[in-house]
Amino acid sequence: MILVGGPASSYLAEKLSKLSGMELLRIEHKLFPDGESYIRFPSGRFRGEDLLIVQGTHPPQDRHIFQACLLAETALDLGARSVSLLAPYLAYARQDKRFLEGEAVSAQILLKLMKAAGYRKIYTVNVHSPWIAERSPIPLIDIHAEEALAEYVEGRGLRDLVVVSVGKKGECMARMVAERLGVEYSVAKSTRDRETGEVKVELGGLRLRENVLVVDDIISTGGTMAKLVQAIKAMGAKKVIAACIHALMIGDASEKIFKAGASEIIASDAIPSKYSEYSVAGPILKKIAEEG
Amino acid sequence: MILVGGPASSYLAEKLSKLSGMELLRIEHKLFPDGESYIRFPSGRFRGEDLLIVQGTHPPQDRHIFQACLLAETALDLGARSVSLLAPYLAYARQDKRFLEGEAVSAQILLKLMKAAGYRKIYTVNVHSPWIAERSPIPLIDIHAEEALAEYVEGRGLRDLVVVSVGKKGECMARMVAERLGVEYSVAKSTRDRETGEVKVELGGLRLRENVLVVDDIISTGGTMAKLVQAIKAMGAKKVIAACIHALMIGDASEKIFKAGASEIIASDAIPSKYSEYSVAGPILKKIAEEG
Repeated sequence: MILVGGPASSYLAEKLSKLSGMELLRIEHKLFPDGESYIRFPSGRFRGEDLLIVQGTHPPQDRHIFQACLLAETALDLGARSVSLLAPYLAYARQDKRFLEGEAVSAQILLKLMKAAGYRKIYTVNVHSPWIAERSPIPLIDIHAEEALAEYVEGRGLRDLVVVSVGKKGECMARMVAERLGVEYSVAKSTRDRETGEVKVELGGLRLRENVLVVDDIISTGGTMAKLVQAIKAMGAKKVIAACIHALMIGDASEKIFKAGASEIIASDAIPSKYSEYSVAGPILKKIAEEG
Repeated sequence: MILVGGPASSYLAEKLSKLSGMELLRIEHKLFPDGESYIRFPSGRFRGEDLLIVQGTHPPQDRHIFQACLLAETALDLGARSVSLLAPYLAYARQDKRFLEGEAVSAQILLKLMKAAGYRKIYTVNVHSPWIAERSPIPLIDIHAEEALAEYVEGRGLRDLVVVSVGKKGECMARMVAERLGVEYSVAKSTRDRETGEVKVELGGLRLRENVLVVDDIISTGGTMAKLVQAIKAMGAKKVIAACIHALMIGDASEKIFKAGASEIIASDAIPSKYSEYSVAGPILKKIAEEG
């Protein structure tokens, strides 16, 4: 299998190639002044190779999605035998069902389009709604990065630690991280006021430690994370670390979180940002090796 | 047939409905804070209707393209019998062939994806590369708006007029506009310096009149149009009007054109802008009536 670094994730493709020794194919890309993407495989024609195209669909999502289509269609047209997609962040996963009649089920539509573009399967990391794989028209392989996060935290040598998360999905993530670290975890409850939209969090039976690692799969606008950090600081925690897999960091998200009292923000490199402290490359290579 | 106003072109759908009496279906749409699109048909389920989804693919092209996919897939899922796309501006039409080995033929890939999304045909206006229709995997119907432009200019009562355009495709457009107005036209030559990228224009045998209407299908960064206007002003023209079908107006395009001496910029409403002085609604309705 040959790695192809798409415009959204070329840094990760390079990392995967360095770690595994897999061949890396570089592509040419640019944006025209009007905002259209240009894609070229300077290597020209293929001879039946299997390609793994590394192209996240983080913001700007629609641009990265269309680039993913250009990459697949062009590679197949040039003679590749198969193309698989590695999208370390999968866009539109929050619109995973019809909440109101007449809504677009955007998650399913995206998966269907990726299939139409020619992909035979999609690898992703900590997809927000793992259940979309069940009804996906294309195999969707979800890779977990909790262990990589735990290893990074362990490497930092933080002692006297407790892990906190929020909600049912958060519980799963907190458990995986805490078990790997050999520490306790606690799950907070969050409720959103239907009138004002304000988020309230209840920490429940948290047994405070000197250091608190708050984990969530995505930090988007940072509202929930900031509330959690604030509540934990108010309990008297010395150091609170805001950790996630995917740092979308919309608007003033990081400002909010630091203002709430977090000492730092930690994220993976699934979405490249200045908070990318640990890598999803390890878990990805492990999964690919398992899959054969 | 029922009109659906997509987020990119709801103004045009309304205009088409008012002019023709065709039923107009409004949709709900918004952007989430992270930039993802939300689409909903508040009318809920369909009962075998044929829909014409009006959704241009002007900038931001990739967002409008993905919205077009969401609209088609959702409408069909909700029970529409068929969906056709009216994209008054068709994105990626300039990447219509493999100029260099290994390039994505983006125009063909876009058409293929629209077919995969469920569209049965695409209507567009003055597509930049009409020949893409020949190899299109989905019927592509190109609607001409030159007559609408000419009628608008006629309505303005401009006398002593000559039409100027540039290049082979420009000639076709200039002829259509000039014939409808009963005036002469002239075709300039443009050459691009391969080293510097600078565009030079030669006006050739232009017989100057008091008013000059310069026409092009697209004004993008405005470079070519500004050069033409400048050269015609330098010949001593009193009034030079810069006219196009599609006003992309990238960056300081309009500033460049006015600085070159244009008295005004005229564009259609295929792409909504402050220069939308005439409408493509008439030619569209005529074509739809012809098609049955």
